[in-house]
Amino acid sequence: MSRKVRMGMIGGSLEAFIGAVHRRGAALDGEIELVCGAFSSDPAKSKATGEALYLPANRVYGSYKEMILKEKELPEGERMDFVSIVTPNHVHFEAAKFAIENGFHVVLDKPITLTMEEAKALEKIVNGSDVIFALTHNYTAYPMVKEARQIVKSGKIGQIRKVIVEYPQGWLSQLVEATGQKQAAWRTDPARCGAGGGIGDIGTHAENLAEYITGLKITELCADLTIFVDGRKLDDDANILLRFDNGAKGVLHNSQICNGEENDLNIRVYGEFGGLKWRQMEPNTLELTNQENGSHIIRTGVGNLSAQAAAHTRQPAGHPEGYVETFANIYRNFAYALRARWGNSSATAAVGNLGNDHTISGQYNPEIHDFPGIEEGMRGMGFIQTVIKSNNSDQKWTKFEI
Amino acid sequence: MSRKVRMGMIGGSLEAFIGAVHRRGAALDGEIELVCGAFSSDPAKSKATGEALYLPANRVYGSYKEMILKEKELPEGERMDFVSIVTPNHVHFEAAKFAIENGFHVVLDKPITLTMEEAKALEKIVNGSDVIFALTHNYTAYPMVKEARQIVKSGKIGQIRKVIVEYPQGWLSQLVEATGQKQAAWRTDPARCGAGGGIGDIGTHAENLAEYITGLKITELCADLTIFVDGRKLDDDANILLRFDNGAKGVLHNSQICNGEENDLNIRVYGEFGGLKWRQMEPNTLELTNQENGSHIIRTGVGNLSAQAAAHTRQPAGHPEGYVETFANIYRNFAYALRARWGNSSATAAVGNLGNDHTISGQYNPEIHDFPGIEEGMRGMGFIQTVIKSNNSDQKWTKFEI
Amino acid sequence: MSRKVRMGMIGGSLEAFIGAVHRRGAALDGEIELVCGAFSSDPAKSKATGEALYLPANRVYGSYKEMILKEKELPEGERMDFVSIVTPNHVHFEAAKFAIENGFHVVLDKPITLTMEEAKALEKIVNGSDVIFALTHNYTAYPMVKEARQIVKSGKIGQIRKVIVEYPQGWLSQLVEATGQKQAAWRTDPARCGAGGGIGDIGTHAENLAEYITGLKITELCADLTIFVDGRKLDDDANILLRFDNGAKGVLHNSQICNGEENDLNIRVYGEFGGLKWRQMEPNTLELTNQENGSHIIRTGVGNLSAQAAAHTRQPAGHPEGYVETFANIYRNFAYALRARWGNSSATAAVGNLGNDHTISGQYNPEIHDFPGIEEGMRGMGFIQTVIKSNNSDQKWTKFEI
Amino acid sequence: MSRKVRMGMIGGSLEAFIGAVHRRGAALDGEIELVCGAFSSDPAKSKATGEALYLPANRVYGSYKEMILKEKELPEGERMDFVSIVTPNHVHFEAAKFAIENGFHVVLDKPITLTMEEAKALEKIVNGSDVIFALTHNYTAYPMVKEARQIVKSGKIGQIRKVIVEYPQGWLSQLVEATGQKQAAWRTDPARCGAGGGIGDIGTHAENLAEYITGLKITELCADLTIFVDGRKLDDDANILLRFDNGAKGVLHNSQICNGEENDLNIRVYGEFGGLKWRQMEPNTLELTNQENGSHIIRTGVGNLSAQAAAHTRQPAGHPEGYVETFANIYRNFAYALRARWGNSSATAAVGNLGNDHTISGQYNPEIHDFPGIEEGMRGMGFIQTVIKSNNSDQKWTKFEI
Repeated sequence: MSRKVRMGMIGGSLEAFIGAVHRRGAALDGEIELVCGAFSSDPAKSKATGEALYLPANRVYGSYKEMILKEKELPEGERMDFVSIVTPNHVHFEAAKFAIENGFHVVLDKPITLTMEEAKALEKIVNGSDVIFALTHNYTAYPMVKEARQIVKSGKIGQIRKVIVEYPQGWLSQLVEATGQKQAAWRTDPARCGAGGGIGDIGTHAENLAEYITGLKITELCADLTIFVDGRKLDDDANILLRFDNGAKGVLHNSQICNGEENDLNIRVYGEFGGLKWRQMEPNTLELTNQENGSHIIRTGVGNLSAQAAAHTRQPAGHPEGYVETFANIYRNFAYALRARWGNSSATAAVGNLGNDHTISGQYNPEIHDFPGIEEGMRGMGFIQTVIKSNNSDQKWTKFEI
Repeated sequence: MSRKVRMGMIGGSLEAFIGAVHRRGAALDGEIELVCGAFSSDPAKSKATGEALYLPANRVYGSYKEMILKEKELPEGERMDFVSIVTPNHVHFEAAKFAIENGFHVVLDKPITLTMEEAKALEKIVNGSDVIFALTHNYTAYPMVKEARQIVKSGKIGQIRKVIVEYPQGWLSQLVEATGQKQAAWRTDPARCGAGGGIGDIGTHAENLAEYITGLKITELCADLTIFVDGRKLDDDANILLRFDNGAKGVLHNSQICNGEENDLNIRVYGEFGGLKWRQMEPNTLELTNQENGSHIIRTGVGNLSAQAAAHTRQPAGHPEGYVETFANIYRNFAYALRARWGNSSATAAVGNLGNDHTISGQYNPEIHDFPGIEEGMRGMGFIQTVIKSNNSDQKWTKFEI
Repeated sequence: MSRKVRMGMIGGSLEAFIGAVHRRGAALDGEIELVCGAFSSDPAKSKATGEALYLPANRVYGSYKEMILKEKELPEGERMDFVSIVTPNHVHFEAAKFAIENGFHVVLDKPITLTMEEAKALEKIVNGSDVIFALTHNYTAYPMVKEARQIVKSGKIGQIRKVIVEYPQGWLSQLVEATGQKQAAWRTDPARCGAGGGIGDIGTHAENLAEYITGLKITELCADLTIFVDGRKLDDDANILLRFDNGAKGVLHNSQICNGEENDLNIRVYGEFGGLKWRQMEPNTLELTNQENGSHIIRTGVGNLSAQAAAHTRQPAGHPEGYVETFANIYRNFAYALRARWGNSSATAAVGNLGNDHTISGQYNPEIHDFPGIEEGMRGMGFIQTVIKSNNSDQKWTKFEI
Repeated sequence: MSRKVRMGMIGGSLEAFIGAVHRRGAALDGEIELVCGAFSSDPAKSKATGEALYLPANRVYGSYKEMILKEKELPEGERMDFVSIVTPNHVHFEAAKFAIENGFHVVLDKPITLTMEEAKALEKIVNGSDVIFALTHNYTAYPMVKEARQIVKSGKIGQIRKVIVEYPQGWLSQLVEATGQKQAAWRTDPARCGAGGGIGDIGTHAENLAEYITGLKITELCADLTIFVDGRKLDDDANILLRFDNGAKGVLHNSQICNGEENDLNIRVYGEFGGLKWRQMEPNTLELTNQENGSHIIRTGVGNLSAQAAAHTRQPAGHPEGYVETFANIYRNFAYALRARWGNSSATAAVGNLGNDHTISGQYNPEIHDFPGIEEGMRGMGFIQTVIKSNNSDQKWTKFEI
């Protein structure tokens, strides 16, 4: 089908942060076009956003229900192919459910839903449908994270023994939600973001990163949650001991009160024969440590990397790629999956790059063009639930349950 | 005019590197859409590229002349507004000239032309027309480079004394142009890239960066060019002493044979009261040095930055922005300038961001939304010419002349 | 007393690691001279070591008891003033006890003793005597650690909320104690190093560093110890949640199986208004983070530092000081304390430096020339004991007890 | 000869900076003892320094001539073995000459003399005598510099093509010599430091580092010297193009007005097959770059390093060694050479270390235990002379001459 994939957006008005990120990520590779949106529950805001995005007035809707129903009536060559849901968490479930039930594919921001009950219901809906469902756990879409996963898989660093994963931020060091900061307001409000504060917003990214790179599952944990800022309703700091299904041990800590920290998601993984270190704020560097030989610096675009890393790299070495490319990677792979469904998989899928040359094309391959989906979403909900249960318990270990 | 700005591309077939960079940069902010292209002098390649980009067949042309003439005949609501020229250097002049003479605005990749003669001719054409002309000296579009320029302007580090600007790469350490590497082939061929090899390809970026941040002009220089790799026709290494118009001294060196270097453009500027250090490969950090107080780390998105830095930042602190955003910044500012010309300047121009919140909008302001143009292009051509003249001279100093 | 302070050493034969460190640290400032030693329980080894150190044969002893008794009989102008005990842990108690009971001052390597019982007995002996007692928790003797402590004390970063302290090493990733590696052999043998493996060897340094910088005390903890290497008898990995007496939370993890890690003790401390980051492997840098202003880089020898930092700095800025200077700082301060006891405190005590100039002299001041003693030793033993107790418990929290 | 080597010091009163560095370096390994000194041309200052150093009054002299003559009369078992000359440059020649003519070995601070005439005279004296002569070009005594030299020698990075060596400092950004700063006063005074300002004080270190690592000689250069601070008499900034005897090109720049720079001597060396990067302020790291494989991080004490690196390492990996150890390395090797002369070479020479274990002993080997001498001194003087000549010339290239 020689046309761009068509996206409709739910949420993401001009005031929001993550909506623009999704739009930029979707636009970057020229595979997807935004054709309609229900950008706000306030129709005036939705309209203003649609205008700023140069959408025709008749494709800007006052509610996601209206959008889904009206788009459904449009002919195939015109209507949206999928919805991107970028609202606060409390809208996720109903919007995703309605989209799927009306036959639209879905890209959903994490965490999947407000509650575990909703999550389980959505899991059933997704698994019972034939829609393609992507969850934007974007940090695992960095090429060096892909490379790290492949190195672990290869056995090069041996059996994993220890994992340290950290996600310190400092932006909630004061009660900024009381000052009208919109990002802070909904992220600290249980009614809109769920039972987890920082643990849901960023802790789930750390959990997803650790499980993605290592291929291991957390089996039990011991959590200490804190609300450091008076007047806040949800955890702004978490320190957690981890145990994994192969016997590996670990530490996960996330925080929104580490004054002066920006967005420092990072991970260290140690195996019997070596280790891996990666830091989101300098995402194009991966360090491979070794007791006998010292460290090797692996860099985006340098040398012979895995097909997985190469397929998610757009520039030659030393031309830094960053945050927006992680969303682009998910959206592009989602588009590839959609095209494969449509039957033209071989058209444009990037499968590697050659030195300083451009990305080369080839067959779509889910082993290479992977993206997070419902399973990763359920792990994230299980993580939030287990951390809160552990925090309320006097027992040292709480089983990870979904 | 409530529609996207329409771009036609000259050059940038699927095999090229920089074409995709321009397309991604132009697409990122949703201000510009690619509507047509003459992607290659080979019509079959142009056609294949147009298809991969989901362009309608009738908007994919076999030559830039055909494109310009045919687009010109389309109604205003349909035809392209500007051309983006991303061919090797030897095509720049004729394509730009033809576009301007037919009333199209131009975005041109650097260096502007193959020769100084062409450059002077193009300068006259641009200055004699009313087109908007942008040159993609992209590295000065990083927010931390904008911030550095404002710090120097503010007088905070005093009178500038010394500038060290470096651009080491290693990708031409061997004779890769003999192995079919397309990027290497034209960049080492005088017929397609001009009299300067590395000095034109990357040395001009270093020169542009130094003059942009300091606000100074190079007045004389002393150059030592080398061809290290046997069989190569153009300089692959340059070491240059600089003198500036305020009495400051400096060093500029660029190289393509620094084996193991990726794309390490960097600069240090020292004034009487402090210094600035910036490195393209970690572009979101700017170091402000001071003898009495130690270093202060300035970061994209952190604290009170200049309006210039803020207007070129899309993400909250710690969400890394990189190379593609520099092209996006130029394209977006170019689009703003075009809209201002059209009379709707206040619509969407980004003028700052607020903490972790989204970029906020306001009035288009050329002091904030600046982009390189013909003047920067002429400085670059003067630099190439002066370096080559100095290299051929036994005299220590050669005056910088355009 | 216009002569060097005289040191006798117990342990530290040529084969040992830490003995040479102590000798170098003691020698560095010219305040102390090694006059005698009982370097090994094997008299031949002791003799060989004494010869290599150019000691006269009659001052090299076959046992510490012999040394202490014989030295005691020498006239004041000749005999040693203090003993430095650098043996494996199981010898600490008896040697220290015998030295104190015979009137000699003591410098002791950490941890103070093999068991808590010995520690409590030694505490009584030290407190009941008038000897000067120093414990070489050397890592808190770095100038930037001193500076960090003063910054916390000053209130600049506000009430402390979170502490992350890490001590990863990788040298025991394999069963090297089975290969004749002497350092590994005694450090993994409960009979010679006590009930804690890594937790005693390096975990106590982490605990000491956290309490020293913050001025807080750990009140309860939750520990997960592991022996990853088959055949090992003691913990080679520890992950611990911490709670402090002011309500702060924290994480301490140490490991000897982080393959590829050298000796990466590091700490991050976050208060309400800012944070501090310090890393032993780059010890001359201290980062002061702040949400509004970004990071400030504090460097040894740069700008106006505290008297505590200045007094422990020997070189101008940028002339790196390292590990041996931390021992020198403890030995020098110990010598100052001894001279103060002797009545000539003002002679040589370093109290600061002036820019790039030499350290300047002044009055000995225990607030500035501090060193760890019996209290720090008891905290370390309490830490080992509490961690082991917690590890054996199903309860989440175990009270820190000595 | 089973005793320490005996040192007498010329210069280095309590007010001086470099005297204490030499004393600490000499003391560190227990191979050398300070037995006498003529610490100042002011006898009262000399006396005060001797007292602070706990020297007997009769070994503290009012002038170096008195010291040399009186020590010469002492019996061999008592008198000093060598002099360490740490005065400002204008005293170097006469003191070294007098010492050598009276049969004493010499350690001399760089640059060797005030003028080229003195240097040539001293060269004759040294070469015509049988004294052992060491020059404290200390920066080439770092283990990672030794390693870099061995890597180049091994051919691993191929024929050297480009060398960038930098030595920025900022401490003379203002006219501090007018404020009573003693270090600044003599270093900016031609009568005491010679015709070169920064070029002699630090430029020679950069030259020595480049030639030591590469094994190449500078054959011609092009220099631009500046005095940026009004009222200063000697260069405080230098930018220099280099050409080497194998065809390699390079840049050397040093400065004392790079406001905010501490002591950032650093070098990058690129060969056909790889590169090396080293920075004095983080001296235990050496980066080996490679276009195909990415960077390898070589660290003091990690893995299989050269015998040269291992023999100059005292601590296990991750226990940072720094500036004082570079002086210790020269003094220790000088002591080894002296002992070898005395006939007991095999006694204690360090030849390597084993993992986390102590340095091991073996045969003295001048290929391993090298130190700079008169040849390096003459290269330094030639460098100063050639730079000044080039600076005064309109010709681009000036031949390097001694």
